[in-house]
Amino acid sequence: MDIERIQLQSHGDHRGMLIALEPERNVPFPIRRVYYLFATRSGVHRGRHAHRHLNQLAIPVRGSVTFLLDDGTGPVEVVLNDPSQGLLLGRMVWRELYDFSEDCVLMVLADQPYDPDDYITDYDAFLREVHGSLYPAGMLACLDR
Amino acid sequence: MDIERIQLQSHGDHRGMLIALEPERNVPFPIRRVYYLFATRSGVHRGRHAHRHLNQLAIPVRGSVTFLLDDGTGPVEVVLNDPSQGLLLGRMVWRELYDFSEDCVLMVLADQPYDPDDYITDYDAFLREVHGSLYPAGMLACLDR
Repeated sequence: MDIERIQLQSHGDHRGMLIALEPERNVPFPIRRVYYLFATRSGVHRGRHAHRHLNQLAIPVRGSVTFLLDDGTGPVEVVLNDPSQGLLLGRMVWRELYDFSEDCVLMVLADQPYDPDDYITDYDAFLREVHGSLYPAGMLACLDR
Repeated sequence: MDIERIQLQSHGDHRGMLIALEPERNVPFPIRRVYYLFATRSGVHRGRHAHRHLNQLAIPVRGSVTFLLDDGTGPVEVVLNDPSQGLLLGRMVWRELYDFSEDCVLMVLADQPYDPDDYITDYDAFLREVHGSLYPAGMLACLDR
């Protein structure tokens, strides 16, 4: 799956912590958009989409959140709860976000400005784009026999 | 003084809040660096420098912090405590940060990568670069008579 957890160098001293993100140093793309989610209500699920082209780096700068990630081969659950750990999300990964802590602030860096045409918001449509059909390639091979 | 408070559009709904930052939309420069300060200890002062060229946008995505700002004409105090309000800081503004709340996460977008040569860390040197001397221009005019 086109995801990767990355450890971010923390410039901590007696004053507190500072983490810096720069393209070509620890961000593998130009930063063309930054957004942050906060004050997410209890029980809320967000996301539920994939991107055709967008690359993103998500960092829980405060609190915690759980990602469910799926590239069409089945879901993986990732808990983000450390402001010095980021999650790189590549293209064509279905994501769903839940279990936001009350204090969660999730910061996301993206390599493109907002483009509604880049979203796939229907899971079956996502599977069709990934597999060419609703069914995994292996299953289709069996049906073809 | 080359500072400006800006109100950021919040895309809030029943799920929670989302704020997006994009160059040429609500950020007046390309984003070449993002950093965040957190876990700042009680009583700590940070900053105490000016930048010769750097432009920055500071946003308290969680909690609160106070800025003391000075362009050489005297200090102004600005409290940041709203994740939908940003502070644009231009070049040659001395800044000192204090009164961080325990939960404060301060996110800063910058238009250049880290460059130690861009920092002025001595206040008298800052005043000399601003005024051409340690004294305000008006005072020097009096002395010249």
